[in-house]
Amino acid sequence: MMETIGFIGTGNLGTPIAANLLKAGYQVKIYNRTREKAKPLEALGAELVDSPAAAAVKGGIVMSLVSDDKAVESIAGNDLLQALGNGGIHVSMSTISPDTARMLSVQHEAQGVAYVAAPVFARPEAAEARVGNAVISGPAAAKERIRPLLEAGFAKNIFDLGEDAGSANVLKLIGNFMIAGAIEMMAESFALAEKNGVDPKAAYEMLTTTLFASPVFRGYGGMITERKFIGNPAFSAALGLKDMNLVLQTAGRSYTPMPLANLVQARLTTVLARNTKDADWTALAMGALEDAGISI
Amino acid sequence: MMETIGFIGTGNLGTPIAANLLKAGYQVKIYNRTREKAKPLEALGAELVDSPAAAAVKGGIVMSLVSDDKAVESIAGNDLLQALGNGGIHVSMSTISPDTARMLSVQHEAQGVAYVAAPVFARPEAAEARVGNAVISGPAAAKERIRPLLEAGFAKNIFDLGEDAGSANVLKLIGNFMIAGAIEMMAESFALAEKNGVDPKAAYEMLTTTLFASPVFRGYGGMITERKFIGNPAFSAALGLKDMNLVLQTAGRSYTPMPLANLVQARLTTVLARNTKDADWTALAMGALEDAGISI
Repeated sequence: MMETIGFIGTGNLGTPIAANLLKAGYQVKIYNRTREKAKPLEALGAELVDSPAAAAVKGGIVMSLVSDDKAVESIAGNDLLQALGNGGIHVSMSTISPDTARMLSVQHEAQGVAYVAAPVFARPEAAEARVGNAVISGPAAAKERIRPLLEAGFAKNIFDLGEDAGSANVLKLIGNFMIAGAIEMMAESFALAEKNGVDPKAAYEMLTTTLFASPVFRGYGGMITERKFIGNPAFSAALGLKDMNLVLQTAGRSYTPMPLANLVQARLTTVLARNTKDADWTALAMGALEDAGISI
Repeated sequence: MMETIGFIGTGNLGTPIAANLLKAGYQVKIYNRTREKAKPLEALGAELVDSPAAAAVKGGIVMSLVSDDKAVESIAGNDLLQALGNGGIHVSMSTISPDTARMLSVQHEAQGVAYVAAPVFARPEAAEARVGNAVISGPAAAKERIRPLLEAGFAKNIFDLGEDAGSANVLKLIGNFMIAGAIEMMAESFALAEKNGVDPKAAYEMLTTTLFASPVFRGYGGMITERKFIGNPAFSAALGLKDMNLVLQTAGRSYTPMPLANLVQARLTTVLARNTKDADWTALAMGALEDAGISI
């Protein structure tokens, strides 16, 4: 029988990852704050538990994927660390502040638990197909031990950024900032095309099959030309704003001026000021389109 | 014997394209304002002439690739149009204002000459290897006739945007704006990495082999991490600024606010204020790096 894994957080991204682990044959004990949202995973053999600590086995591995710094801090308290105990590993997959990751790493180490930062680069459908990317940082032996779990869960590629727990989160924030920048860039471009007699879809096709032939431009560009902004978000505008706030917080603390990050943060703030629910973060493209008088 | 083609403008990009035409067996009559710069092409069989009109044969094709709107207007005057005459074609490959292209198109048509806009998407080495991209707009029959020349000269792919002479230039400006945006995005990102303990080259490798695995991010990102900003520019900061000014001019005329275009225009302006010569336009990345106190 394969190892028992704890899994905390069955949101849009946690759910397909936990499902993949179950399909790969792992025993998975799942905790989610809203228990009903984890229910569908029972059918795949998951055991639902009532606290983060109850998901842990001594010296075992717990993976977590929750919404923000506060949520990670609240699940990764003393109860969980004691339940994992010496030799245990916490694989922290949430997108959080590098500083929070470093602080948690120290707290974990004090209890003999290894903290591995392993933020997920994947939208839910990519995680499900196990073609996502993982960036990891933390203690070497722990990283080696959890590698098969990342591969079984969602990752096609794993990039190792060394021992500093914060490093993986720095790169994750950069990745999300660059996606937001790409969305802004395409939104301004497609607005210029439309206002000057060029079909935005023709511009999209040309650019994303040549100079910008990459998954981000292809995928998000398609969502922009199709105006898929509102309804059933794979990654919500609220989470996008949280990440851009983390980018600016990290930039501010390290004295790194990032005017493009300021711009996309403001775009997402406007989206949330207007559409409180159901907006995908691609909706930040609405800013440039609406500013140009293009009705959406 | 193959057709005689006129070619005007043997700069960084015109030179490899004219050379490819000669290698493909075309007779090429070349005009360049500074005659000596075209000299090396004589060895490949080119005939150097002393005026734009002298490059034309009646009913034939003249291709031009010069630096800006004024330069195109000065070469494409009555002399050239009369020399080309009825059935002639002017393939205008320069990156110019869509409005200028439309005005020229009307002037050409009045003399029976077809104006085809065909701006070049390629750095010189890509043009030389004939893996560049062409975007064309203009009269259908003329576009069909010049297609083999674009393929022989530089283009792997040709995208047809219809009859409006301005359309190809709109898309060319969008492409250059997006490259500039990508440079700014990476510069801010690599500065954030460096200031937070992550090797910018590791960030570059991860991002440009996954989410941003495209020629622009791979190529320009490498130039940024290698700090290849000054010296022997393939595309100068001065030309980059000219293009961003065209983007903002087109945006202003069409009431399309483009804050990211404003930002990259300002970055390039600063480059030119400090380094008047020999800066590649990738040097716009120096802005975000230097603002973060990173010495270059």
